[in-house]
Amino acid sequence: MSTYQNETILKMIRGEKVDRFPVWLMRQAGRILPEYRAIRNSLSGFKELVETPELAAEVTIQPVDILGVDAAIIFSDILVVPEAMGLPYEMIEKKGPWFENTVRSKADVDKLPKEIDVAERLGYVTEAIKVTKRELNGRVPLIGFAGAPWTIFCYMTEGQGSKTFSQAKRILYSNPELAHELLDRITNVTITYLKHQIAAGADIVQVFDSWAGTLGPKTYSEFGTKYVRRICEAIQEVPVTVFSKGAYYAREELAELDCQTIGLDWNMDIAESRQIIGMDKTLQGNLDPCLLYADFNTIERKTKNLLKSFGNRRHIANLGHGVYPDTDPEKVKCFIETVKAHSIN
Amino acid sequence: MSTYQNETILKMIRGEKVDRFPVWLMRQAGRILPEYRAIRNSLSGFKELVETPELAAEVTIQPVDILGVDAAIIFSDILVVPEAMGLPYEMIEKKGPWFENTVRSKADVDKLPKEIDVAERLGYVTEAIKVTKRELNGRVPLIGFAGAPWTIFCYMTEGQGSKTFSQAKRILYSNPELAHELLDRITNVTITYLKHQIAAGADIVQVFDSWAGTLGPKTYSEFGTKYVRRICEAIQEVPVTVFSKGAYYAREELAELDCQTIGLDWNMDIAESRQIIGMDKTLQGNLDPCLLYADFNTIERKTKNLLKSFGNRRHIANLGHGVYPDTDPEKVKCFIETVKAHSIN
Repeated sequence: MSTYQNETILKMIRGEKVDRFPVWLMRQAGRILPEYRAIRNSLSGFKELVETPELAAEVTIQPVDILGVDAAIIFSDILVVPEAMGLPYEMIEKKGPWFENTVRSKADVDKLPKEIDVAERLGYVTEAIKVTKRELNGRVPLIGFAGAPWTIFCYMTEGQGSKTFSQAKRILYSNPELAHELLDRITNVTITYLKHQIAAGADIVQVFDSWAGTLGPKTYSEFGTKYVRRICEAIQEVPVTVFSKGAYYAREELAELDCQTIGLDWNMDIAESRQIIGMDKTLQGNLDPCLLYADFNTIERKTKNLLKSFGNRRHIANLGHGVYPDTDPEKVKCFIETVKAHSIN
Repeated sequence: MSTYQNETILKMIRGEKVDRFPVWLMRQAGRILPEYRAIRNSLSGFKELVETPELAAEVTIQPVDILGVDAAIIFSDILVVPEAMGLPYEMIEKKGPWFENTVRSKADVDKLPKEIDVAERLGYVTEAIKVTKRELNGRVPLIGFAGAPWTIFCYMTEGQGSKTFSQAKRILYSNPELAHELLDRITNVTITYLKHQIAAGADIVQVFDSWAGTLGPKTYSEFGTKYVRRICEAIQEVPVTVFSKGAYYAREELAELDCQTIGLDWNMDIAESRQIIGMDKTLQGNLDPCLLYADFNTIERKTKNLLKSFGNRRHIANLGHGVYPDTDPEKVKCFIETVKAHSIN
């Protein structure tokens, strides 16, 4: 096992004694930093940045240097997986992802290539991880990630963002066998992909189920948790974090997963979540990202309340969602510094 | 009190004995019916339909005739309230609502007229209610409605739909006094508006807090429930239904409101919700609207499961969200007929 100048986050995940809570932010590598935008604006688009390992590594490390977070997370996108599976995406400025082709029928699924050479198709991500690890030079651990199968399924079937993902859900209800076939394929590719990330140096992996909340308790159990469970069982090399945004009703079920950390969104009460999930997991979250629009005093006060709610239990401080693009980096620093100044006795 | 040929829904709300569960659908008057689209397509736009009482009445009654629902709900939009307050909106096809002006500062709030003549500005809605009542001729009760103050605040500050309503939330955190001032004004207009709807003939009123779920427990209590409570206390003439979509964490607080019915979205477990809310309220909901994409057998089976979950307690069958525009009306009928065929013993 590698050692780090700062391994607070790994110690916290393992339940070892630490003197403060570790802190990082979802989407910390990206739009909030002028240093990121300078690089991004010199390129043809978002995908060029994702696909250029040296640059992806550079923006991955920026928040470690500039914000002082306790972990880096590789700059990439969950949609590289559907692209590797045969559905290329575009990232349209101010609109979000867009897929020229979608998968909605058995024929569409059958058209996808059966064998995916993940090492080759997603080599740019593993290469970015290697470059990042080299340049981080042991300062902090590096988090790898992938979308959860249900969330990837949402984009592959809907073809773009949606408030309801009703086209994705239509398939669950009208053709559950087809849904399971596609979810199974996504799961297999995702496991291989995460293993490549780990082999390249990822110290932790996080599975993002961003659209978990579009499903209800039974449906999420059948089409969501089922596949996240397979990922958790397959990944034993490093700690796994599961973040099922909006799936408050699934917390009991998520507590049973073979993972180390459960992410909480800002709707989920910390004490209640701890009670439901029990003492065997590290929790992560969950400041409302909009709170970083407040003044410095309010941010400090609310962050202290959050830290108090952790009750000296295993917890990684984070937001309850990705940091919003129009957030002032100084406000982010205020959050981070407040966490770091708080001792666990 | 008027009597109706079918007053199942009113009896259920009052806790009287009925032999089956009443059923209606959020957004039942609208896009799913070809008969609606025929009228809509003959007009310049959505707003012309909202603002023409005879036509609004006609599309309000269509689902009573065609689908056999147990209540009509007046065809209108929650955004007529911000418009009456001085912020006109447009409804852009396939994009949703759009406001030319928004309210984000004290100066913006001060620019809004202080005295709103609701009777005059929203006379087209009360007139539509009167025409509907006349033409319904006692067949079923008529539901009036308004947006909850927080949801109206979202549109007035954000100016359009949003996945996060981060501009609206920014104000809550950065200028809570201003937020309360605007929420207070919206609440006052909404109470007057609902009273006019009731005077015109609305038998039930529903308050839609569509964006409740964007807030967390404490924030919703402070900026959401607080104002819904004032509406509930002010409206004593007819039963009030509160639907706070996504605010699962607020169910205990909502149970304390002076209202008769609580709407549930499809994420909320019925038995758990009944336990949290207690026996003094009627519940309403909550089939996943996407389930109506399934085949008839599946819809029938899942609807029967839903009915079983009501446990012969006070419940109004409905979806957990508005019916989606691409839903086959025959599937909607299957849901409605399954509810109507189920006896409560």
